[in-house]
This record gives sequence, structure tokens and C-alpha cells, in this order.
Amino acid sequence: MNCLRSKSHLQKEMAQSSTSNSSDMDNSEQYQIRLLREADKVKYLALLSQLTTVGEISDDQWKERFEELSRMNDTYEIWVLEEKSTSNLVACATLLIEKKFIHGVSQVGHIEEVVTDSAYRGKGLGKKLITHLIDRAKILKCYKVILDCKEDLIPFYASCGMKQHAVSAAVYFE
Amino acid sequence: MNCLRSKSHLQKEMAQSSTSNSSDMDNSEQYQIRLLREADKVKYLALLSQLTTVGEISDDQWKERFEELSRMNDTYEIWVLEEKSTSNLVACATLLIEKKFIHGVSQVGHIEEVVTDSAYRGKGLGKKLITHLIDRAKILKCYKVILDCKEDLIPFYASCGMKQHAVSAAVYFE
Repeated sequence: MNCLRSKSHLQKEMAQSSTSNSSDMDNSEQYQIRLLREADKVKYLALLSQLTTVGEISDDQWKERFEELSRMNDTYEIWVLEEKSTSNLVACATLLIEKKFIHGVSQVGHIEEVVTDSAYRGKGLGKKLITHLIDRAKILKCYKVILDCKEDLIPFYASCGMKQHAVSAAVYFE
Repeated sequence: MNCLRSKSHLQKEMAQSSTSNSSDMDNSEQYQIRLLREADKVKYLALLSQLTTVGEISDDQWKERFEELSRMNDTYEIWVLEEKSTSNLVACATLLIEKKFIHGVSQVGHIEEVVTDSAYRGKGLGKKLITHLIDRAKILKCYKVILDCKEDLIPFYASCGMKQHAVSAAVYFE
């Protein structure tokens, strides 16, 4: 798989559409997990703004970045959890698949931009989404999945099967 | 910039060749920092094996992954520090540039696979290479650079201008 596998620019849903990537229903059938679509702009950016600074993003900027990430669909998978009755996006998380030489030319999954809408917390939706991303990483033959978080979130990620293994250092330019 | 910007498959050095990416000499002029080349296979994998499991990688596997990463040269930059008199690769580090929607459709640099050959430690070469990667991330308009490490390496990364800001959680599949 490489960037040449990308779909047409008319594609409106990121990445694959095979059964293995399609929606996982939760038990209540109230929610579906699916890949981000180009039409999700307003709802998705509103969700991200609960996590961090998003800034002003024009329709053209959105479209350009969305199509760029869609072409690189063996590297970026942006997943959302949608409430079926309202079509609200209530949680999101990105799986970045990094190609390595180590571990026999393997891959590592990085989980990024994890948000659950504040009105929907405490329902296990974040756990459902993270578990889905971990499953995806395994299917994609990553040898591990990692993420950075504040220390007080470790119990949550432990409930998803993850363990603290290191610390994270950063330098900010802005 | 996208994957279509990639160079011919005859290209033997990863990514850009502009002045801004070319060698930074250290004061002693003994070492140069440069991008990984396809011909570096044996030396580079030997260096990585000081960090973690590399496994058996055939020439075809090496070539395929090298060319894949070269085509994605706005996402992967693998840097090495070479001793000029011996042509030994004495340190390496990868800059993975992740494209984001947040922070105004910005980017984040991830530093991965940091190794200094055990025979060359204590000379400030790792710091020189990490500082180079941080500079690259800034040039590429990343809003931050992050990495995961063991807690006892925080003083080293602090000497490069980085600060611990989070913890890292993982799940391993192998």
C-alpha cells in the first residue's frame, strides 16, 4: 500500500470502505463509529475545539487538508463516533500509522486528537472509540500503539488495555 | 507538498537536497549531519540494533521501505550523523511530520529512533543531532516537536530545549 492507492478527489469519505473498516455498533445501537467525511467540517472542528486551539479554517483549507490526508490513507485514519438519532459527532480520535524499519520493517500506531463531547462523557464512548483504534492498529500489523496524555488519564487508557511505558517531552514554537 | 512531489526511484538520498537541509558541520569539522541514503543500509540497521529489535531485513525490503519513505518526504526525514574520516554513522534520529487540522491546519514533529553509537557517547553528538531536528521542525512550521523517552533521559532532552509535558501509554501486540 502506498500513496498511489489513493482514491479520486471526488471521494467524500476518508480512506477505506471495506467491511473491516465500517461501523462498529455499540450494544445500544445508538452510535456508529465511522471515518471522518469531508461534510463533517463544522461538527468535527467544534469537537476538536473542546481539546485545543483550532483557529480559523476556511472551507478551502479544510478541503485541501482533508484531501491530502485522504490520499495518505495508509498513514491517517480519522475516526468519529456519531449519535445516530441526532447525527451529532460525539467523539473523535486519529490513528496515525508510522512506517518503520525496526521490528522487521513494521509500523507503529499513534493515537492523536482524542475528544469526547463534554455532554456525552461518562457513557463509555471514548473507551469504545479507543478500543476500535487499537483493533485497527492490530489489523494494520502495527507492533504497538502509543499515545501521549496527562498522567491523570492513565486509568482511562488502562481501561482500554494500555499501560504507561514512558514519558513525553516537547518543545513549543508558538 | 504531497506524495506526488517524490523524486525518481533512482534517487539515492532521502528527501530534499536544498541548502537548508544539507550538512551542518560541528565545530571540529569531524562530523556531518545528512539525510539517510539508500546505500547506508548495513550501517544504519547496525545503529538501530543498539536501540531495539531490527530483525532480518532483505535488500528488497530495505529498498522498498526506503523508497516508500522517500516518496513521503514531507512526512519522513531520517537524519544521520556521520564521522567524516571513517564514514561511520555514529548517530541517527527520525523526524516524522504529522499533518493536523488543529492550530490552524498545522503540523507536529515527532522525533523517533534516536541512537548514538555506544563508542561515541558523551561527545555531545546526540544533542547536536536533536537540535538539528528541532530546527528542521521549526523551518517546516510545526507548532511543536515531541518525543517519548524513559524518564531518566529527560535531563538530556532538557539540554536540547525540551521539557516533559505528558506521559506515554502503549499497548504491544508482539
